[in-house]
Amino acid sequence: MSETDITRKLAAWVVNFPADGIPQSVREEGVRTLFNWMGCAVGGARHETVDCALAGIMPFAGRSQATVLGRGERLDVLNTALVNGISSHVLDYDDTHLKTIIHPAGPVASALLAAAEYQPVSGQDFLTALLIGVEVECRIGNSVYPEHYDRGWHITGTAGVFGAAAALGRMLGLDEQRMTWALGIAATQASGLREMFGTMCKSFHPGNAAKNGAMAAYLAQAGFDSSLQAIEAPRGFANVLSTRHDYNEILGGLGEVWEAALNSYKPFACGVVIHPTIDGCQQLREELGSEVERIAAVRLRAHPLVLELTGKREPQTGLETKFSIYHAAACALLRGDGSPTAFTDEAANAPELVALRRKVSATSDTSIHEASVVIEVEFEDGRRIERVIERAIGSRERPLSNQQLEAKFAHQAGLVVGAETTQSLMEMCWRLPELADVGALARASVPDGRRDAAE
Amino acid sequence: MSETDITRKLAAWVVNFPADGIPQSVREEGVRTLFNWMGCAVGGARHETVDCALAGIMPFAGRSQATVLGRGERLDVLNTALVNGISSHVLDYDDTHLKTIIHPAGPVASALLAAAEYQPVSGQDFLTALLIGVEVECRIGNSVYPEHYDRGWHITGTAGVFGAAAALGRMLGLDEQRMTWALGIAATQASGLREMFGTMCKSFHPGNAAKNGAMAAYLAQAGFDSSLQAIEAPRGFANVLSTRHDYNEILGGLGEVWEAALNSYKPFACGVVIHPTIDGCQQLREELGSEVERIAAVRLRAHPLVLELTGKREPQTGLETKFSIYHAAACALLRGDGSPTAFTDEAANAPELVALRRKVSATSDTSIHEASVVIEVEFEDGRRIERVIERAIGSRERPLSNQQLEAKFAHQAGLVVGAETTQSLMEMCWRLPELADVGALARASVPDGRRDAAE
Repeated sequence: MSETDITRKLAAWVVNFPADGIPQSVREEGVRTLFNWMGCAVGGARHETVDCALAGIMPFAGRSQATVLGRGERLDVLNTALVNGISSHVLDYDDTHLKTIIHPAGPVASALLAAAEYQPVSGQDFLTALLIGVEVECRIGNSVYPEHYDRGWHITGTAGVFGAAAALGRMLGLDEQRMTWALGIAATQASGLREMFGTMCKSFHPGNAAKNGAMAAYLAQAGFDSSLQAIEAPRGFANVLSTRHDYNEILGGLGEVWEAALNSYKPFACGVVIHPTIDGCQQLREELGSEVERIAAVRLRAHPLVLELTGKREPQTGLETKFSIYHAAACALLRGDGSPTAFTDEAANAPELVALRRKVSATSDTSIHEASVVIEVEFEDGRRIERVIERAIGSRERPLSNQQLEAKFAHQAGLVVGAETTQSLMEMCWRLPELADVGALARASVPDGRRDAAE
Repeated sequence: MSETDITRKLAAWVVNFPADGIPQSVREEGVRTLFNWMGCAVGGARHETVDCALAGIMPFAGRSQATVLGRGERLDVLNTALVNGISSHVLDYDDTHLKTIIHPAGPVASALLAAAEYQPVSGQDFLTALLIGVEVECRIGNSVYPEHYDRGWHITGTAGVFGAAAALGRMLGLDEQRMTWALGIAATQASGLREMFGTMCKSFHPGNAAKNGAMAAYLAQAGFDSSLQAIEAPRGFANVLSTRHDYNEILGGLGEVWEAALNSYKPFACGVVIHPTIDGCQQLREELGSEVERIAAVRLRAHPLVLELTGKREPQTGLETKFSIYHAAACALLRGDGSPTAFTDEAANAPELVALRRKVSATSDTSIHEASVVIEVEFEDGRRIERVIERAIGSRERPLSNQQLEAKFAHQAGLVVGAETTQSLMEMCWRLPELADVGALARASVPDGRRDAAE
């Protein structure tokens, strides 16, 4: 792969690739991506992080162009993209491109939907732009992963800003030159440090990528120029933000092999490394029934990385429970819960969960895959059973069905906007390809009464 | 220097350092910093880059909180900070912290003045915040320079966002914890690639740093949290964006040795490496009078870096002339001009300038300092004279006087807003420490009639 004109060739593909060149199966995955993102954005809408973000930016926001999902405040397109990107990620429940750990929809869908409220667009055009944006984002991620991530960049922020710019640039109908500029304006805003994990800034990253990527597209549309080699130049994105790159990951098989088709959706509201444990413990709970009350010990064996990331023995807050495999195992065994309600301050301090998590031990075992776990349960009478999870539910090998996506959506969104709004919103999301005006989705995310009150 | 709590200690200094602990000489340099920045922002206000930026963001901006300098559009604080940061840098005529090549005022003053229109503040409090912000910005720059810059980061963007956050956080009266968060939210937005030099995105960087730093301060004020070790953590700013750091440059002598007192102001509207040549050629022109028309050859000797950066033989556009030492020498000799009017499309193609620049040659000489030049002029009759410039006007050794700053301001701002508005604005800028409401400065940058029309 020649190292020149990467950015221009990518931009040319973004603006020229025919919508009907996208396979039907990829389009269907795109609808699932939108569906899952919407459920997460509504589910996270009342989180303290979103409250603080809104309190900080509201005095400065333009008004009445787009809708804060699940709440109803109406702000300008860019600030709406920021807030919806935050809420879609804040519960750690969103989608994952497993090759790069990018959460693709947050930056891309948050930018697109806010823009679609401002300038109406059909469901088919929206879906095309969404898939192209996710494709750009994941491919740029692939080209620098894992070195870029290992260096300390939160790749959802740094690759996400390209995805948002590409998606909106496509939707706006930019020409090749302006699309190249948009990618350049995105590149020079690429940011987000992994040091922020565990703070509100983690979910700020996809929101900010959505906002900045959208701004890049609008600036380029207005003639604001940038380098034409923003990705590949000696002082461009790939060289400055990574120690290695492979541009074949960006342009190779573009439009033929779809990274956007590899998106996956979390069944549990925490990092993917805990998912096998929750999956296995939920299975055991279903089989054991009331016997879970007679558990004497739970012994987990997992890859060292899993324990490095989730080894918090005595979590005190909801946020800390997301980094405790002990808590996750106990909560799945006792309550069967891996949803956002499993990771709350209440759950962190519930006596029965604290008691059981103290019976959970974990050992590192390099012979076990990062995506696997071995669970041994010992009962008070000395009996033992073992469960091996090779790949958890939600992985590419065991993807969530549409029905499971609905159950996830309904649970988290129902807590925020109620069952009725949730039900009609879900139905509308599935009908994305038929919608004449996608902006209707955003407005449908808010219960009637609240929508009126917020305006 | 211990490598913990750098961010927290810096934040504590920002919020607690007593205003009266700043020496009078430093405060006077702060006024000169504001004065020079204002002249540049007004002088750049009608540049195409500013037109394009405004066209891109206006549909999404909030309204009527702050003033686009020299023009009169009124936008929200954050977008105003963006636009004024762009216009203050777009002519390459702004201030320079020579140790890091940071242009300090763009990020800091652009954020502060926009905020001061929204929440009134006195000249003394504004000046204190400005100096503290510039100090933070330059010290963070010092801690990672030159490795950070060499890696490809435009340091005015990456260090500038900290400066803007610190300055506004001080002006808002954040407590230590919130100031620490503000620095963290700034850190995770640090961005700007040197690849963008030569495009509109170069001046986008200080503007975006102003806007994002201001947003960091407002978000932190609203309780939006971040890492408390954003600078020094293993995956924090210094480690991720540089290959070396020295935290003593941040905390050592803080409040005693002032980097903000080392600010310098460009006499010429181009990169500093050309300045010795322009200075020397202007001196020669004054001595030679009409003899400049009988020049047969001009021979420059300069450090190799100078020619690497400015070796464009046949510039075709105004932007390209900024990278042509040949053009700069010719224009200074023939017209005595190094101001923005020397670097226009007209100047690039003026026959008499083209003719003279073709008589200019330049040779690399490692024995000559980067900040020096040797100029030899040969006349048609064979006579030769030589001029050695050890340090150019505008350097720390030969700083611009207040009178020279006024001449610079008057020339560039007068072209945009006329002599009358320029004169009263200059007078008001010098009176910064006495102003009861600094926001008046912004409103005074717009001629009366235009101000009414823009609102």
